[in-house]
Amino acid sequence: MSTARRKKGLIIVNTGNGKGKTSAALGVALRAIGHDFNVSIVQFIKSKWRPGEVRIASKLKNYEITRTGEGFTWLSKDLEKDKAKAKKGWELAKEKLSSDKYQIVILDEITYAINYHFIELEDVLEALRNKPEMLHVIITGRNAPKEIIDIADLVTEMKLVKHPYKSGIVAQRGIEF
Amino acid sequence: MSTARRKKGLIIVNTGNGKGKTSAALGVALRAIGHDFNVSIVQFIKSKWRPGEVRIASKLKNYEITRTGEGFTWLSKDLEKDKAKAKKGWELAKEKLSSDKYQIVILDEITYAINYHFIELEDVLEALRNKPEMLHVIITGRNAPKEIIDIADLVTEMKLVKHPYKSGIVAQRGIEF
Repeated sequence: MSTARRKKGLIIVNTGNGKGKTSAALGVALRAIGHDFNVSIVQFIKSKWRPGEVRIASKLKNYEITRTGEGFTWLSKDLEKDKAKAKKGWELAKEKLSSDKYQIVILDEITYAINYHFIELEDVLEALRNKPEMLHVIITGRNAPKEIIDIADLVTEMKLVKHPYKSGIVAQRGIEF
Repeated sequence: MSTARRKKGLIIVNTGNGKGKTSAALGVALRAIGHDFNVSIVQFIKSKWRPGEVRIASKLKNYEITRTGEGFTWLSKDLEKDKAKAKKGWELAKEKLSSDKYQIVILDEITYAINYHFIELEDVLEALRNKPEMLHVIITGRNAPKEIIDIADLVTEMKLVKHPYKSGIVAQRGIEF
């Protein structure tokens, strides 16, 4: 029967305009390395800072993180350069997805690269369809395309209820990066 | 001016019926220990398994986790025992909150203990009001009481969009615990 209880690698999507999309993926990573799983994170967006999830990498086994770096934001002055970086990041991500070396691969903020048309949605869908069966993939970012939601197993929308910036509080180390 | 940009310890609430409430708190913990912050987690709910976030504790500096254990679920046969455990957990949490030894304290699933009236909402509010100014506190669990939302700085609702249990997939190690 098709609803038999079984295990399989999940496609998980954390989307929405609230906080916690990347954090929830990192929390799954923390748990997973507690179980000695191998975790690979590919981050598709730049940051001014060296974030905690990068700083901790040298202290953890079974955990690797690559930042495809400086990319595709409205702040950028050179969209072609951004696109090239996103594409390079995606080539790396595809290798990770197909390598069978990991139990979890996190494609952090990849929805931006898709929505800016720096990488092809169809190419991402194909890589997800062909992933190793037991591999869990976590996709984060706002406005996850409908086609990705459709093939996902678990989708959570992080919804902003209340935000401290409105009270003049700045982004803080250890909390937001 | 009251909207001056400043730093302060935030009260963060992850609530809603979706996944990722605890994971997002754990992700903030991962980031924070990357910045050499001290993190203490008090978990207010039992689990059949020894979860990844407990297993990893021996491998990480600046990270401690206490489970107040077996508690207050509809599965329980002895509510008085559950209540006693929740109260003991809360006493410990209060010590952590006031100790000034941590940058981040996570009160995981504490909303259940409050909503079951095992611990007093007013007592929790008072501890939050009197916390060290720079301490960040993360509260997770469904149905966060309005009074906690009111004093929180950052509130996110994790909303379930799609869940794999409906397709017969079981909870899996490394992902959900």
